[in-house]
Amino acid sequence: MVRDIHESKVLILDFGSQYTQLIARRLREKNIYCEIHPFNTSIENIKEFNPKGIILSGGPASVYEEGAPKVSKEIFELGVPVLGICYGMQLITHLFGGKVVRAEKHEYGRAELQVLDSSDLFKGLPEKFVVWMSHADRVLEVPEGFEPIAKTENAPFAAVRHKEKPIYGVQFHPEVKHSQFGDKVLENFAKVICGCEPLWTMENFIEYEVEKIRETVGDKNVICALSGGVDSSVVAALLHRAIGDQLYPIFVDTGLLRKGERESVERTFKEKFNMKNFRVVDASDLFLERLKGVVDPEKKRKIIGHTFIEVFEKAAKEIPNAEFLAQGTLYPDVIESVSVKGPSATIKSHHNVGGLPEKLNFKLIEPLRELFKDEVRELGRQLGLPEEIIKRQPFPGPGLAIRIIGEVKSEYLRILRDADAIVLEEIKKAGLYDKIWQSFAVFLPIQTVGVMGDERTYDYVIAIRAVESVDGMTADWVKLPYELLERISNRIINEVEGVNRVVYDITSKPPGTIEWE
Amino acid sequence: MVRDIHESKVLILDFGSQYTQLIARRLREKNIYCEIHPFNTSIENIKEFNPKGIILSGGPASVYEEGAPKVSKEIFELGVPVLGICYGMQLITHLFGGKVVRAEKHEYGRAELQVLDSSDLFKGLPEKFVVWMSHADRVLEVPEGFEPIAKTENAPFAAVRHKEKPIYGVQFHPEVKHSQFGDKVLENFAKVICGCEPLWTMENFIEYEVEKIRETVGDKNVICALSGGVDSSVVAALLHRAIGDQLYPIFVDTGLLRKGERESVERTFKEKFNMKNFRVVDASDLFLERLKGVVDPEKKRKIIGHTFIEVFEKAAKEIPNAEFLAQGTLYPDVIESVSVKGPSATIKSHHNVGGLPEKLNFKLIEPLRELFKDEVRELGRQLGLPEEIIKRQPFPGPGLAIRIIGEVKSEYLRILRDADAIVLEEIKKAGLYDKIWQSFAVFLPIQTVGVMGDERTYDYVIAIRAVESVDGMTADWVKLPYELLERISNRIINEVEGVNRVVYDITSKPPGTIEWE
Repeated sequence: MVRDIHESKVLILDFGSQYTQLIARRLREKNIYCEIHPFNTSIENIKEFNPKGIILSGGPASVYEEGAPKVSKEIFELGVPVLGICYGMQLITHLFGGKVVRAEKHEYGRAELQVLDSSDLFKGLPEKFVVWMSHADRVLEVPEGFEPIAKTENAPFAAVRHKEKPIYGVQFHPEVKHSQFGDKVLENFAKVICGCEPLWTMENFIEYEVEKIRETVGDKNVICALSGGVDSSVVAALLHRAIGDQLYPIFVDTGLLRKGERESVERTFKEKFNMKNFRVVDASDLFLERLKGVVDPEKKRKIIGHTFIEVFEKAAKEIPNAEFLAQGTLYPDVIESVSVKGPSATIKSHHNVGGLPEKLNFKLIEPLRELFKDEVRELGRQLGLPEEIIKRQPFPGPGLAIRIIGEVKSEYLRILRDADAIVLEEIKKAGLYDKIWQSFAVFLPIQTVGVMGDERTYDYVIAIRAVESVDGMTADWVKLPYELLERISNRIINEVEGVNRVVYDITSKPPGTIEWE
Repeated sequence: MVRDIHESKVLILDFGSQYTQLIARRLREKNIYCEIHPFNTSIENIKEFNPKGIILSGGPASVYEEGAPKVSKEIFELGVPVLGICYGMQLITHLFGGKVVRAEKHEYGRAELQVLDSSDLFKGLPEKFVVWMSHADRVLEVPEGFEPIAKTENAPFAAVRHKEKPIYGVQFHPEVKHSQFGDKVLENFAKVICGCEPLWTMENFIEYEVEKIRETVGDKNVICALSGGVDSSVVAALLHRAIGDQLYPIFVDTGLLRKGERESVERTFKEKFNMKNFRVVDASDLFLERLKGVVDPEKKRKIIGHTFIEVFEKAAKEIPNAEFLAQGTLYPDVIESVSVKGPSATIKSHHNVGGLPEKLNFKLIEPLRELFKDEVRELGRQLGLPEEIIKRQPFPGPGLAIRIIGEVKSEYLRILRDADAIVLEEIKKAGLYDKIWQSFAVFLPIQTVGVMGDERTYDYVIAIRAVESVDGMTADWVKLPYELLERISNRIINEVEGVNRVVYDITSKPPGTIEWE
């Protein structure tokens, strides 16, 4: 039996900061396992979780306001070190009788931190370095028993420590990249102060998870829907590592895929990984038939969703002895969101995040439930997946159907596929593919006039879309080099029959969306 | 009776060079009247034209080839100075027995001219200056009786002169702006060598033309179709200067005009120029009705053309005592084009360039027939027209109808008008309006998804088009500053109801066209 890689772990209590997930990601980069839970998690649950340390995150509230989110003082009695970040530090100050006031002006941005004590939290760090501040309240007086261990020009208590107990607070945000050595501060908390061991590596994860999967699955078979995207690919590769040909990956060709996509997936999984039970279901005619005459984007999405389930279900039923369905649910999908306006009791249901219905009656396997996206990518690399899959830009479930405005026709698909391949090829050639969130072509079913040679043409329009985004929630259109746009435009018009005009989408999200439908 | 401003004139014989019109424009800038005629114009016609000098233009042919375009040697006996430019010089060399050969390499680009004699053609010019070469053939030996008057490093006969007769040749192109002092060389030919007087000024033109119009018109009335564009506006202003309220300008509001366009034209002509008989015919309902359900661009154009004539004809019939129709035909429309592959006998019919049919049975007045576009603009300034009209970018006859893809609807017109006004306002604010050939908005009748606040939107798309061009025949999309595009996109989406996405057209002409339909 392999050692539990979760043994040495930190609990992050979330007070609603937009940066809370970054705390977890920074710790995990230092190979420390951690989980995010709401600030109002009960003491019993915390004891059961058995962390080696607790971090109180930042948050938008003010500690002196009525109804401000709090923690029970009991957590300081568990014998486990606590670190408060920003709001977390103000909360500690408040709970121990110090004074927190509204600052005259919101402190936001860079500040130079001067370290006063480098024996634990700041161990091995320079005397001065730059940190990132973002707070409206400030600590005016530290509670009795606390002492400053770092200051800035404006904040005499930029970092504090209890003189006897392992309780720490920092006013700045070590979790953001703008804070120099911020990751080191968090690592010091976990390793030096809490005594955590760096067990959380993707090598260890594979070893641990493979054994766990084998135990769970036994001699049954597992099916999974393979889309060619990074999550489902990593799930398939991990399962295959664990149970070999007990895995039945099903790839549904909806006919709404990009140029060469099906062939590329087949090459990787059937040939490179030698997955003997890899199955391709070609349902392109069925999808096209169902979409005939349908113009409304919502209807198109629904038809595609239902048809996919129908096709997948039929394929799944043909697989003998199949008891499990593996899905690529990620950690950000399962973190309970915090409502700081009063604790939320709702726990999100995360079954079937991938959209496959419960009535399929499979037991779910979600081996990526604990992982952030960057960990999934690293895991994929360890499993030998090609960079082409690992760095793939997001591609929507309904595929090219929502990149054809209005009705989907096979002629439109042919044009869009060819144009899209040129966009991707040129974006890759320019070295921009990895730097851009998404880049693709859209088919506009309108015809405009052009001239080629001495002939008048009356052909379709292709739009190019390229956006920068951190999470897909907001997005800016990319200011692509004009020579690149010119080259893409020329190539599409010259090489794709049926197109005589190309436009570039200059709409951000909001008010636009990344996809056109 | 005022002096004829055409008295002192130069004849340009055209051998098909793309630069021939530039020779005329350079001379006219120096106030010398000139006309362009085909190289094969008969000696009788030349005598009748009675020029003070003759210029033989450049051209693509080679003098030693069979069927190369030539002139009769008689033109050198008319007692009138002759200047050959490039092919023109090679032709003189050939006709007088010199030797022209194919150069080893095509000489194209800058060369330093060294003047050997500055008594006439190069009078007042520096000893050395830069000129522009573009030729495949070169003069190897000058004919007897000729001498070099300038050379370059590669061309010992960059400019030549007959020792006794006023016959000159230059290998370079003085008419292009890249040739330093090129305009001065042409001016020297006209003034120093031919003895032309600088009578051709727009002040003189007005005086001359006003008298001519008065003589022609007598006590009859004149109608004209005013579009708000520079040509028809200058025609109206000139006619009004000549005959006052005998002019009846008719402005047809097709309902396909841009925002504030009708009001602006009314302000200028009715108020500023005080044209008492200015008439606006509001036919917007009729145009919209006729365009209902029509999708094909060619059909739309035809319907608009026919409806315009119908409306104009009806309005014209109501004007008493109207015998003349004034039109803004320009000189480039009436220059006979040259076919160097054998003289063309066809003479273009230039009546009704404006599209109004002969059956209207008016006598035509075309006071701009002798003018280039830049002269028309200068004339407009002299007549007191606002810069807004003089520098107006071209606007197509069918108006916004061909900037709405497919069927024209009043809702679409409202959206397009508002979006277009923002494009123009921002382009002007950025100081780019005068530098761009055309800039405008296009309405795309497709809906795409967006988000505003928490609401999902499903609205139309606006395309922005901005092109650089010299003559509208070919055009490049303009690399507008990205901040400007961003501002235009944001403003359109925020201010124009019904739009949630903006794209930028990145198609050049060819293979696109400037307008979308």
